[in-house]
Amino acid sequence: MSQAKFIVIEGLEGAGKSSAIALVKDLMEKQTGKAPVCTREPGGTVLAEKIRDLVKIAEADDPLCDEAECLLFYAARAQLVENVIKPALARGEWVLGDRHNLSSLAYQGGGRGLMPLVKAISDATLKGFKPDITLYLDVPPALGLERAASRGELDRIEQQALEFFDRTRETFLALAAEDDTIHVIDASQPMSEVHKDIQSVLQSLL
Amino acid sequence: MSQAKFIVIEGLEGAGKSSAIALVKDLMEKQTGKAPVCTREPGGTVLAEKIRDLVKIAEADDPLCDEAECLLFYAARAQLVENVIKPALARGEWVLGDRHNLSSLAYQGGGRGLMPLVKAISDATLKGFKPDITLYLDVPPALGLERAASRGELDRIEQQALEFFDRTRETFLALAAEDDTIHVIDASQPMSEVHKDIQSVLQSLL
Repeated sequence: MSQAKFIVIEGLEGAGKSSAIALVKDLMEKQTGKAPVCTREPGGTVLAEKIRDLVKIAEADDPLCDEAECLLFYAARAQLVENVIKPALARGEWVLGDRHNLSSLAYQGGGRGLMPLVKAISDATLKGFKPDITLYLDVPPALGLERAASRGELDRIEQQALEFFDRTRETFLALAAEDDTIHVIDASQPMSEVHKDIQSVLQSLL
Repeated sequence: MSQAKFIVIEGLEGAGKSSAIALVKDLMEKQTGKAPVCTREPGGTVLAEKIRDLVKIAEADDPLCDEAECLLFYAARAQLVENVIKPALARGEWVLGDRHNLSSLAYQGGGRGLMPLVKAISDATLKGFKPDITLYLDVPPALGLERAASRGELDRIEQQALEFFDRTRETFLALAAEDDTIHVIDASQPMSEVHKDIQSVLQSLL
């Protein structure tokens, strides 16, 4: 059997991550005969989910500072990598991630303009650990946010200004251009086309 | 009025930090005519106290990994520095800290052998911000732990092996030797002598 792989789905709010994840999960199960271990970030362990709750709830008298937000995301990620992802891969189980490190680089590094901080913490924490394959679902922020808004209330991160998401998207694309494990999928297409593209990329890789 | 100062008390468990803090608080109040803003780490803001709780409670099925522990301490510290310490100093209020960055360098960096990780995260997060004066209460680990044990149950960190505390102490002393804002106080002496030494160091500095 080929070595277990860690595949990650990335994308802005409203890019269609959830349905892409369902599709990729099926494809992985067909490939390996077994459902992959599914993770979401931030979260995915008992502690990481508690950290996720802290990040999601802004306190009026103790607003989350940029550094703390970044450090909390990486604390959750470290727990997930050490206690879930690496052990699964070591057992030969494939892992499917709903977001991973690329989100921090794009949102905090690019969107908030904190790339030196994020890169320093990313390098120190992950020490080169990364997904085998990342599918980045690319969508113009205005379209993505329209889709996300139609699902219900936007959370703290989704309430950011559109320019924030423009910078985030640019960073996703720039990082994809320099890393051949990151594959850009045009997620502004109808879902059936998006899914065809995902299938074709994964079939060529697996 | 002279510029507001940030003074920190550091030391192993059982070094006598609590009584030293009470003394230094009085001395600072005499100096400035006003009680200092008192902080403790990890903690000291709404979010940082929640982070402190996460660090203190180890989950059997999700043990805190070294990286996550370090990142959580720095997330709490970033909140405290940005939302409490810097604003207080900017208002001209003095700040008295029960532990600060030196603890992370000594415990995680030295004790756990994670100095490259801790230094990278410390540098990225604090960007040169540091206390004006640190008093490190030096005590042999065996004596400190005996005192701490007599106060009641030891927490997760205090249950570490003695060699961990030996490495931590060596790191405290090594960092003090290379930083003239860190003053070593012999805390194995009777409390009255320790307090005399603290008073004499602070009187020469303030």
